[in-house]
Amino acid sequence: MALQLSIGARVRKSPFFDAARADGMAAASVYNHMYMPTSYGDPAAEYERVINGVAMWDVGIERQVALKGPDAVALARYLTPRNLDGLKIGQGKYVPICNYEGKLINDPVLLRITDDEIWLSIADSDIALWAGGIAGARGMDVYVYEPDVSPLAIQGPKAIDVVADMFGNWVRTLSYFGFAEAELEGIPLILARSGWSKQGGYELYLRDGRYGARLWQLVKQAGAGYGIGPGTPNYIERVESGLISYGADTDDATTPYELGMDKFMDVDQKEDFVGKAALRSLRKAGLKRRFMGLLIDGEPFPAFNEARWELHQNGDYVGYVSAAAYSRRAQSNIAVSMVSTTAIESGQPVDVASDWGHRKATIVPLPII
Amino acid sequence: MALQLSIGARVRKSPFFDAARADGMAAASVYNHMYMPTSYGDPAAEYERVINGVAMWDVGIERQVALKGPDAVALARYLTPRNLDGLKIGQGKYVPICNYEGKLINDPVLLRITDDEIWLSIADSDIALWAGGIAGARGMDVYVYEPDVSPLAIQGPKAIDVVADMFGNWVRTLSYFGFAEAELEGIPLILARSGWSKQGGYELYLRDGRYGARLWQLVKQAGAGYGIGPGTPNYIERVESGLISYGADTDDATTPYELGMDKFMDVDQKEDFVGKAALRSLRKAGLKRRFMGLLIDGEPFPAFNEARWELHQNGDYVGYVSAAAYSRRAQSNIAVSMVSTTAIESGQPVDVASDWGHRKATIVPLPII
Repeated sequence: MALQLSIGARVRKSPFFDAARADGMAAASVYNHMYMPTSYGDPAAEYERVINGVAMWDVGIERQVALKGPDAVALARYLTPRNLDGLKIGQGKYVPICNYEGKLINDPVLLRITDDEIWLSIADSDIALWAGGIAGARGMDVYVYEPDVSPLAIQGPKAIDVVADMFGNWVRTLSYFGFAEAELEGIPLILARSGWSKQGGYELYLRDGRYGARLWQLVKQAGAGYGIGPGTPNYIERVESGLISYGADTDDATTPYELGMDKFMDVDQKEDFVGKAALRSLRKAGLKRRFMGLLIDGEPFPAFNEARWELHQNGDYVGYVSAAAYSRRAQSNIAVSMVSTTAIESGQPVDVASDWGHRKATIVPLPII
Repeated sequence: MALQLSIGARVRKSPFFDAARADGMAAASVYNHMYMPTSYGDPAAEYERVINGVAMWDVGIERQVALKGPDAVALARYLTPRNLDGLKIGQGKYVPICNYEGKLINDPVLLRITDDEIWLSIADSDIALWAGGIAGARGMDVYVYEPDVSPLAIQGPKAIDVVADMFGNWVRTLSYFGFAEAELEGIPLILARSGWSKQGGYELYLRDGRYGARLWQLVKQAGAGYGIGPGTPNYIERVESGLISYGADTDDATTPYELGMDKFMDVDQKEDFVGKAALRSLRKAGLKRRFMGLLIDGEPFPAFNEARWELHQNGDYVGYVSAAAYSRRAQSNIAVSMVSTTAIESGQPVDVASDWGHRKATIVPLPII
């Protein structure tokens, strides 16, 4: 039985919520204490748009945690194992955030907005509390707050043409995770080349929530000739691309090494940061499990998984699937999973306890496509 | 148009989820990264049970943040303005938690479990991150984690008889917020006299998630003779009783003084705690707004509010309604609201911009009933 989503004042609506609902939002979840659209009722069309066309997504749930003041950069450096030497205004970086035990607690994109202001565009955990608690306890001169900023994503191979039509051809040369201030009819924005898909695209960070409905219409109009339509962070595309979903793929014990984030960390840098000693120990100890892809046998799954599925090999528990779906491009059921290194190194298949019976699966590297 | 709730691995299910769904869960929201049942499809019966009978609620979303180690009590004292002198094992206390600016970031019930372990039974924000960040930054000898603990509430005037039948008559003498270790068929529990209603009742803190379905059945069987049925934290009862819903009633600027929490704070204590200087300044500066009840004119509202409603008086913005409903007991539409002290002191009615047109309302103290 489908469950209805209760709507009330505790969970917030993005500035695009009413427009997205008017355009057919059919299902939603909650992310960062906000409603997150998850379906417009036509999964095939939504997938097609992000893979071959262009889609517009209300991702207001990507909340910004702003660090502002003389110690903004110092706090940012203390919060992440990533080396932020030479970080420039207009530059974004994907940064793991760990706790003092070296366990991952978020994986935001960090944006340097001005000399003394940094934003963390966060996944689903209250990093404003983490950052504010640490800044306060250390007596740092920095104010941690949530600004009135709500991203709207334009994703898919045709996104570049839509955004160039709106803002000019300069957007074509923006580097990945690069961003610039921009405006549209006086609506203040940050325009970034980013988004939670591997199909290319942009995110318009709306800087004044009063203009949500208007910005939605402007994007819709600009994209009309390219067949733009509403969509959401795409379940199937993210599994194909092996994008990490913090909270789904991770648990309380997940380390950034297990997720293959080595290239985003510099645990030998001079700078001190949260979890430095723990991460150095973890690196030395080596991996016990790793984030991997699966190709799963059998009939196409009729729906998405509602919970994690256990993985076994020769009767032993060896990990879990966090997201699974049938992929038209892979012509197979596929999944992202956390699997023991023993199971990976055996080269043998694993057993998936799926909602539709036990299935055999082959472990493969990510991305799957 | 009703929205469907997407179910996936990112948002967790309580150990009672499947049993609650089998018993007719019709709608849900998300709270502390978990699915929270909000309706079983019969609001009148659910209200009747909590007011005149007995109801069982899956409140697994009341997550516990455990502080364990030699500095557990020191950390707890540093986290709250409440004076914890003489805190005993088996004693629970309602504790505001504020940030360094004196703004409310949660309002948990604190339970002292052992000499060196304290739990915070939290509202909807990631206090594990707040507490863990502060403990780490201060180098305190305490481990902050989320134990495998999930409360099941038994609420309503007949709850006492159900729980006495299950555990013995000693439960009748437990003080409010008092708790004790208990078990049922070997299932480890904490039994507390508490719950998010003013109708009396208990909460069984399940200490091993594997037994969720079994505990649900045991409570259902024990309550059968008393007419027990499933329910959820009740929207109407909470407005009548003026219970605070963190995140719904509060915003980034809300202080505990605005919520009338003075009696739960001792800003003159010797102990240092987060926000002490800020709270002393706020006390001195006095209140600009206050959490109040409203009696609202006109036809019974046909549903609950989907968002905050603005309040005006003589054309000026004077605050917002966070929850509104028709109350059978009050024979009126009622609401909880944050209202400017100027509007309160004027003694004049306010205008409510409700989803069903503008309505006149009288400001009244809480609780309303």
